Amino acid sequence: MLIEAVLMIIPSIVGLIYGESYSARAFMLSAFTTAAAGAFLAFTPAEGSNIYAREGFVIVGISWILLSFFGCLPFVISRQIPGFVDAFFETVSGFTTTGSSILTEVEALDKSMLFWRSFTHWVGGMGVLVFGMIIVPLGGKRSMHLLRAESPGPSSEKLVPKMRDTASILYGLYIILSLILLFLLLAGGMPLFDSLINVFGTAGTGGFSNHSASIAYYDSEYFDIVIGVFMLLFGVNFNIYFLVLLRRFREALGSEELRWYLGIVAFAVITIAININSLYGSFHQAVRHSFFQVSTIITTTGFATVDFDQWPQYSRTILVLLMFIGACAGSTGGGLKVSRVLILIRAARRGMHKMLHSHSVEKVRFGGRITEEETINACMVYLTVYCLIMAASIVLVSLNNFTFEDNFTAVVACLNNIGPGLGMVGPAGNFASFSALSKLVLSFDMLAGRLELFPVLLLFSSSTWKR
Amino acid sequence: MLIEAVLMIIPSIVGLIYGESYSARAFMLSAFTTAAAGAFLAFTPAEGSNIYAREGFVIVGISWILLSFFGCLPFVISRQIPGFVDAFFETVSGFTTTGSSILTEVEALDKSMLFWRSFTHWVGGMGVLVFGMIIVPLGGKRSMHLLRAESPGPSSEKLVPKMRDTASILYGLYIILSLILLFLLLAGGMPLFDSLINVFGTAGTGGFSNHSASIAYYDSEYFDIVIGVFMLLFGVNFNIYFLVLLRRFREALGSEELRWYLGIVAFAVITIAININSLYGSFHQAVRHSFFQVSTIITTTGFATVDFDQWPQYSRTILVLLMFIGACAGSTGGGLKVSRVLILIRAARRGMHKMLHSHSVEKVRFGGRITEEETINACMVYLTVYCLIMAASIVLVSLNNFTFEDNFTAVVACLNNIGPGLGMVGPAGNFASFSALSKLVLSFDMLAGRLELFPVLLLFSSSTWKR
Repeated sequence: MLIEAVLMIIPSIVGLIYGESYSARAFMLSAFTTAAAGAFLAFTPAEGSNIYAREGFVIVGISWILLSFFGCLPFVISRQIPGFVDAFFETVSGFTTTGSSILTEVEALDKSMLFWRSFTHWVGGMGVLVFGMIIVPLGGKRSMHLLRAESPGPSSEKLVPKMRDTASILYGLYIILSLILLFLLLAGGMPLFDSLINVFGTAGTGGFSNHSASIAYYDSEYFDIVIGVFMLLFGVNFNIYFLVLLRRFREALGSEELRWYLGIVAFAVITIAININSLYGSFHQAVRHSFFQVSTIITTTGFATVDFDQWPQYSRTILVLLMFIGACAGSTGGGLKVSRVLILIRAARRGMHKMLHSHSVEKVRFGGRITEEETINACMVYLTVYCLIMAASIVLVSLNNFTFEDNFTAVVACLNNIGPGLGMVGPAGNFASFSALSKLVLSFDMLAGRLELFPVLLLFSSSTWKR
Repeated sequence: MLIEAVLMIIPSIVGLIYGESYSARAFMLSAFTTAAAGAFLAFTPAEGSNIYAREGFVIVGISWILLSFFGCLPFVISRQIPGFVDAFFETVSGFTTTGSSILTEVEALDKSMLFWRSFTHWVGGMGVLVFGMIIVPLGGKRSMHLLRAESPGPSSEKLVPKMRDTASILYGLYIILSLILLFLLLAGGMPLFDSLINVFGTAGTGGFSNHSASIAYYDSEYFDIVIGVFMLLFGVNFNIYFLVLLRRFREALGSEELRWYLGIVAFAVITIAININSLYGSFHQAVRHSFFQVSTIITTTGFATVDFDQWPQYSRTILVLLMFIGACAGSTGGGLKVSRVLILIRAARRGMHKMLHSHSVEKVRFGGRITEEETINACMVYLTVYCLIMAASIVLVSLNNFTFEDNFTAVVACLNNIGPGLGMVGPAGNFASFSALSKLVLSFDMLAGRLELFPVLLLFSSSTWKR
């Protein structure tokens, strides 16, 4: 929270530059409140200092809720988003890099507010706690538990022995990729402010834009390709970049998850392009729009260049399927993750073989090695919990009495941290019409999806709070 | 197939009674063809006579496809349903007790055809092979494998040591319950023909009717209640009735699955009644319609008294959720089954606790005893395969370019053996407009759902056909 308070000074400066003194003051006031609350907690004496799995999960779960709570203060104080639930939803959507918005007209907001909104994507992208780990010195054991609760994917592979070094390297890669993207956007003639907003949205695979039309506003094939490619890059497991840094190219390119990820993207881009060919003058244009939309959805970013809600059903359905698959483990993307989906498919096939040969001891192989039974089991528990959360959320959201497609894809878009869904919440729509209850349920889904379900869910389990 | 040929003589007689000589001859010709093909197979010398798990699954999978193939001949020969794919879909829907129909006007069919269509529900209900097992003498070991492939639910509990005795008892109970229902319908003044059709549809939890308006045709609260209650009864695990026969009442009523099943029904009936109260004059009428629709959907029957597609979203969503849950294991109903859903929820909770205490050895308890790890694993594999089949089917069906709701609920309705879905395939709609490819995909889903996924799926696995 102390770090968050410092981060709030940046949009405050943006506000001063653009002459938005009222908003700038709102940021200063929020920063002061957040810092005060953070300081209060920091100086509260702790009972015991051991951090085990349980404490790790609770810290992560509560931290994200607190950061979102304080992060939405500027919107509320400045009255740019007057309703608290709306502001909370928007901030959760920011930090969780979802990109679902309750704003009906993005341009109505002050520039500083738009900056903060997108900046939360960038900060949330690699996890506020991975960020915190570099600065706050923690013992190896403690960090492990925190990372286990935070890192996206079925298992957190360590790159280098020391956790703080891993975090520093990942963060360094994140900054370098962001800077390259910023350079490419500026080189294409995009204004600095817009470039920053789009870097934040792309790097965090978030998708908030400073234009209602999103990337379609620029109407430029160059930007479509640059942002499309970089979304895909930020959806790749960051371990791959580390291997590239170490010049272990063969290992990097041999990654099974990477190959499947690119294979799925290629399949989706080509079949959708064929499906939508008649809508756009040429196959070239169809591929351009298909590529951008596939990239934005599988990486769970949520930028838009066309309204894919108007596409034929095959294309819409493939996009919904990509929402579930999501990006690679160890990236800033959401969803089930390619590796988890592959492990589940293989475990299912193994299970079927077991029905035929009950004594078989077939192993599930992934990424060139045998997958531990514990990991397989964790993936299946994950899928089960995922289905249960989805079902419960859809029932609660259905109370709004919107269509089945609206409810279903709103939950899918939030739980997988995408942003837009279909119908009312499609690329041209927003989440404004949902009730306060629905917005809270969807906020829960965004947090649950971002933190791999368990840290948020465990907050509601009585066994977590037992002595 | 020889048995099926004999069964076809019954609708042939119905045809003669109603003066439908053309249809009667179609049945005789179909019976002859089926008998000839059956005799050919019966007299083909078998290579080896050992039936292991693999052979059991293949026998069950192929049998259901063959029975549906020959079962649709009367429709095709008589030209009452001229298209082969349509007739096959309708027959698969019959034998699998789904009740999805491609007919736009049910009344246009001959009475004998309507009889056969519904009779397949009754035959399919308890499994053609459980039926066959009573007549064809098989060794204990072989029957076990057949039953394992056929019986609906996570684990097949044996009632009595000998398999053939179990089958006889189950079948006896099935016939007794059917006769009681027949008596109650006749007592209420329903014509004999209609009563038989509705008994077949209710007992098999199928849902084919001889009226386009389904049960709404009678517009009678008495029939609504009788059929509503009997659908629920046929959705109960038949072991419960056996316990009742043995006068072990406490055990029967203490069944954890039964309690949850009734609890879910009560919850759904009450909340839906509140939700739809304003649509129907009184709360009494709201409960009446809510009860019938909840009963018809959770038992996966698919009869209709009102068009629930017109209900508010909460009610529609709860009904879709009930489609997934389905009836009890060991009943004629489909879906995931209440017991499997409960085991999955508990396994998920256990998995979450394990994240906190990695050394915990918590066991999953269900029905008063510890659930074997193998069963839990089988349930999770089941859910995974189920999600994969559903996703693939929705993509294939989306090629029709109907709405997302149509595609999604068409697949859900077929895979869970319900009958109607929402939108175009709602209680007032039908499956006529789908392409031939979609009808085959949906037929596959019906068979997969009815046979608990694996027997049908294994037919497509190369390892099944290895020596």
